[in-house]
Amino acid sequence: MEGFINMRPKVAIIMGSTSDLPVMSEAENMLKSFGLRSEVKVLSAHRTPLATINYAVSARQKGIKVIIAGAGGAAHLAGVIAAHTILPVIGVPMTTTHLKGIDSLFSTVQMPSGVPVATMAIGKSGAKNAAILAAEVLALEDEKLHKKLLQFKKKLAASIKKKTKK
Amino acid sequence: MEGFINMRPKVAIIMGSTSDLPVMSEAENMLKSFGLRSEVKVLSAHRTPLATINYAVSARQKGIKVIIAGAGGAAHLAGVIAAHTILPVIGVPMTTTHLKGIDSLFSTVQMPSGVPVATMAIGKSGAKNAAILAAEVLALEDEKLHKKLLQFKKKLAASIKKKTKK
Amino acid sequence: MEGFINMRPKVAIIMGSTSDLPVMSEAENMLKSFGLRSEVKVLSAHRTPLATINYAVSARQKGIKVIIAGAGGAAHLAGVIAAHTILPVIGVPMTTTHLKGIDSLFSTVQMPSGVPVATMAIGKSGAKNAAILAAEVLALEDEKLHKKLLQFKKKLAASIKKKTKK
Amino acid sequence: MEGFINMRPKVAIIMGSTSDLPVMSEAENMLKSFGLRSEVKVLSAHRTPLATINYAVSARQKGIKVIIAGAGGAAHLAGVIAAHTILPVIGVPMTTTHLKGIDSLFSTVQMPSGVPVATMAIGKSGAKNAAILAAEVLALEDEKLHKKLLQFKKKLAASIKKKTKK
Amino acid sequence: MEGFINMRPKVAIIMGSTSDLPVMSEAENMLKSFGLRSEVKVLSAHRTPLATINYAVSARQKGIKVIIAGAGGAAHLAGVIAAHTILPVIGVPMTTTHLKGIDSLFSTVQMPSGVPVATMAIGKSGAKNAAILAAEVLALEDEKLHKKLLQFKKKLAASIKKKTKK
Amino acid sequence: MEGFINMRPKVAIIMGSTSDLPVMSEAENMLKSFGLRSEVKVLSAHRTPLATINYAVSARQKGIKVIIAGAGGAAHLAGVIAAHTILPVIGVPMTTTHLKGIDSLFSTVQMPSGVPVATMAIGKSGAKNAAILAAEVLALEDEKLHKKLLQFKKKLAASIKKKTKK
Amino acid sequence: MEGFINMRPKVAIIMGSTSDLPVMSEAENMLKSFGLRSEVKVLSAHRTPLATINYAVSARQKGIKVIIAGAGGAAHLAGVIAAHTILPVIGVPMTTTHLKGIDSLFSTVQMPSGVPVATMAIGKSGAKNAAILAAEVLALEDEKLHKKLLQFKKKLAASIKKKTKK
Amino acid sequence: MEGFINMRPKVAIIMGSTSDLPVMSEAENMLKSFGLRSEVKVLSAHRTPLATINYAVSARQKGIKVIIAGAGGAAHLAGVIAAHTILPVIGVPMTTTHLKGIDSLFSTVQMPSGVPVATMAIGKSGAKNAAILAAEVLALEDEKLHKKLLQFKKKLAASIKKKTKK
Repeated sequence: MEGFINMRPKVAIIMGSTSDLPVMSEAENMLKSFGLRSEVKVLSAHRTPLATINYAVSARQKGIKVIIAGAGGAAHLAGVIAAHTILPVIGVPMTTTHLKGIDSLFSTVQMPSGVPVATMAIGKSGAKNAAILAAEVLALEDEKLHKKLLQFKKKLAASIKKKTKK
Repeated sequence: MEGFINMRPKVAIIMGSTSDLPVMSEAENMLKSFGLRSEVKVLSAHRTPLATINYAVSARQKGIKVIIAGAGGAAHLAGVIAAHTILPVIGVPMTTTHLKGIDSLFSTVQMPSGVPVATMAIGKSGAKNAAILAAEVLALEDEKLHKKLLQFKKKLAASIKKKTKK
Repeated sequence: MEGFINMRPKVAIIMGSTSDLPVMSEAENMLKSFGLRSEVKVLSAHRTPLATINYAVSARQKGIKVIIAGAGGAAHLAGVIAAHTILPVIGVPMTTTHLKGIDSLFSTVQMPSGVPVATMAIGKSGAKNAAILAAEVLALEDEKLHKKLLQFKKKLAASIKKKTKK
Repeated sequence: MEGFINMRPKVAIIMGSTSDLPVMSEAENMLKSFGLRSEVKVLSAHRTPLATINYAVSARQKGIKVIIAGAGGAAHLAGVIAAHTILPVIGVPMTTTHLKGIDSLFSTVQMPSGVPVATMAIGKSGAKNAAILAAEVLALEDEKLHKKLLQFKKKLAASIKKKTKK
Repeated sequence: MEGFINMRPKVAIIMGSTSDLPVMSEAENMLKSFGLRSEVKVLSAHRTPLATINYAVSARQKGIKVIIAGAGGAAHLAGVIAAHTILPVIGVPMTTTHLKGIDSLFSTVQMPSGVPVATMAIGKSGAKNAAILAAEVLALEDEKLHKKLLQFKKKLAASIKKKTKK
Repeated sequence: MEGFINMRPKVAIIMGSTSDLPVMSEAENMLKSFGLRSEVKVLSAHRTPLATINYAVSARQKGIKVIIAGAGGAAHLAGVIAAHTILPVIGVPMTTTHLKGIDSLFSTVQMPSGVPVATMAIGKSGAKNAAILAAEVLALEDEKLHKKLLQFKKKLAASIKKKTKK
Repeated sequence: MEGFINMRPKVAIIMGSTSDLPVMSEAENMLKSFGLRSEVKVLSAHRTPLATINYAVSARQKGIKVIIAGAGGAAHLAGVIAAHTILPVIGVPMTTTHLKGIDSLFSTVQMPSGVPVATMAIGKSGAKNAAILAAEVLALEDEKLHKKLLQFKKKLAASIKKKTKK
Repeated sequence: MEGFINMRPKVAIIMGSTSDLPVMSEAENMLKSFGLRSEVKVLSAHRTPLATINYAVSARQKGIKVIIAGAGGAAHLAGVIAAHTILPVIGVPMTTTHLKGIDSLFSTVQMPSGVPVATMAIGKSGAKNAAILAAEVLALEDEKLHKKLLQFKKKLAASIKKKTKK
């Protein structure tokens, strides 16, 4: 009945604005490549604060195990989510027009003690890695996923070796 | 009965941690020097998120007109408050051990459009100026306060001129 | 006679250069959406210093209640205005060719104690938010404007929720 | 026999230098407060590279589920560990004499896609949060730990509320 | 009658706050070492704006040829002076508690085209060099001063050579 | 015979690379607008060091009174010139591909005490202002140039006022 | 038999990704211009860690004398190589999409004591200079190469002088 | 007669100021630990420019093979040396009072193509590593030194392993 279980996604991908979708869909695709479904939501710490909190508070009951949150500028989304849940929260700093994401990075990573946010690199690399980290967490109790990650790592190396030969 | 009215403070000073008190009390003292009482609270966007939101939502009904919020690091406090009220919110970036408050500054000032935070300088100058800005806002409809601000500005200039003579 | 009263703008929008107009007109448009007229001026702290000071000194008598000032680089405009008035002054740091507005941000926000500038985010988001903050200040004594701001906040949330469904 | 199982630590804390111990012991203590034992090692990506790789490669077989790595400057430790394992790796950027940890932060967080490092804040806050994140990951399959984390979060809020009253 | 002429100082040293005096007195002393008197004033772009402008406007008539201005944070002093005079203006960025003078540097150096400020290094080195630059300007038409500068340069080299031998 | 005197340029414009010409020609044109001729040279502190030193050492004898030097990256040109002359040296930091001129700015402005470089803003504004500063220096002993500068300042203000009306 | 000896390259150029090739080929071309062959490899500290270490460990036996390593972001490549060899290692920080190579620079240059990486400028200038530095090292024991470098330096100066004349 | 040959130092350590000696003596001591003598000089790119150039030009004839140069602020020393020699030049950025060595780092590392400076970390780690890099270069043709470096690397690892046990 694995198919059925899989229908309830274990990973949530939320973002502060629809303009973050091209970046955050990298996380969605990477999760798909590991056979993991995800729930994708646009929720803003500043513009829909109550909906954001509701989501954070109820995520675990819906079966979510890891929350990936992408936001830019004074990027409070991952921090607000982390304030309302004890699920692992992964933050992806979006690039910004003027400060190129350094503002997003500081706003995401410099959390006070007590409320961790697992911060990734700025932009697309960060979104992809958020998905891989989520998979690594889930793989701790999922042997099949563990093997997929091992294969992923081998392919990563192989693709680079192939390129070298050319 | 002006005294009575004054007993309900129009300015709130909130901060993310008791360790911010030495800085934020500069705001309290400056307000006092204008004859303005203030309500001082420790509320954390990350550690007491619901109490913070409750405060933001109910502040106006209690007679608060301006909210000053000081926080450091991934400083989301002013932003979270601003997300839940349409009172003017003034943010004071606290200094931090490692990044010296540049993280607090970016996290406070780089708000998305729709949710303004009136950001002050890092640290004590910022706390003092937050109080003055609050007084400037209240003085728009308070002739007595307006005169106090004019006097303050004169004293500011006078104190510098005195120093020059020495 | 509300219409008549409205004909004298309560908000001034000044900027250091006509090249700042595409950014600062975001503030003008946002104010219009709240039914607020504004007075728009190009005044440079460095190139028309006396006109700038005259404007700051006489703004209150003309009925101006809040001054929004946008400038870039060694952005002294908001600070110079704030030095000559006790009206609330809102600063919008313009982006710059080389330092991307970090110079404008520091020059606007790091004001000495005694002379506050309510600093917004760099660029267009900052210009929009300057207008909203101005509206928040005016709404303290204007119930109609207060309701418009509440509606604005609801629409902000609604627009994001709509996007999520798509 | 839960006690017995617990004797094999599930969390590893490694650091690049013994001088990092005062910071990283914050992680160890936080884990203890959740009843979690940890394995503490000094391993340098640059000075003991082979021992570091051996540790990364063999950690899972020893029962380690999460690896916390703290390093400063050109902080490659967490990245090197992450290159050799698919366990979740949490990076703590140490402060540095000259660049105050901004070098450590960039070296830890800006990982290429394929190799995530869950980056925490610079210094002690980051070390504590690394432990909490590790606990959050383990709590996904450990109901007792889950309850401890919920209690921790309540205490966090309570301690702030208590302080406010004083 | 050269002595008499010299009694009217040709260099003004102004600063935004008396707390800048320990730094700016380095400029005064350096000028003295060249036999140049200076007029030292505390004038704030933000707190005594009119006195500052008056000084700038009338400096040339008093015989001032070069103005050295030191200020910190949103350091507008040199820029404001330069806006009101066509005498050469030399800016010295003061260090600041939080941003270590990088804010002062950007606020001083990033002037818009049309209004130059000759910016020096942050702090004491900058103050000393401001004096030397002022002397270099005056030496263009003062053969005695020219020779003093040549001697200064020789001593500079000699002092380093002496140290090397030890 | 003013024309004849003018044929020997009093201002030198040197730059580290021909690629700096589009920026530095702004200085040349601005000087022309004041009726000042300039000598333009490409000289590199790193690639033609001896020619650079020769130029610095002999500039005064050729009648040069002010040297403007533009360079980018590890921008040593202005500093090297200043090491070999006691003429006033004005530095223009060029923008750079990666660090956007912040490297050029630090390399130009952070000179050790004893060897001042009058540093301008990064890029074209800086080049224009270098020319204006040079004119301000020369105007100290040139009444005609002094008047041209006064006119320039008036036009600067007028052009902004005209734009405001539109 | 010089030709034969030359067939075994003395310089290795490795890079973390094929996308670095357009930059790093500048090093290859520069080496060719000195008559030096090089071995070019794509090896990633994070994605092919073992192959990278193997290369570092065995490079000397293959006749390699200097290793040039280019990488971006959390750029660990040069550091990992340096951890496994005592050949001189030259690091070239690649530019990055968001932080423009400042992350690469810090990750490459801020090495702990004991493991030096000779760091070059960000991007193409750095790649070219890496090749020249490698040639300078090899020229210590190669009189022909020494002369080529002297010629290169002369041409460098000559090309600038030519441009000046135009 | 190896002893005799060794009496002529192959490594030069130069620095911009005697205040750099506590940092740069780390390089001297490290070289001694490899049995390498060094020539230590205080030479300033800005204050003793001709002596600096003379040293650079004549170093090779005196038997110097590698030049280590430490300087701070607008740190031109290593660059000036590199402009006048084709010996490998290693730059050590000194920390600075205000900008903590980031100015020194940019001024040392961002060299234009054609003139490489092998840049080390800021401060003492950088000074030590400069010595090790110099030894690595000399070890290419010195089997004894090569062995000493291998031993050094082993000790480095051993000292860390010992610490771990405690």
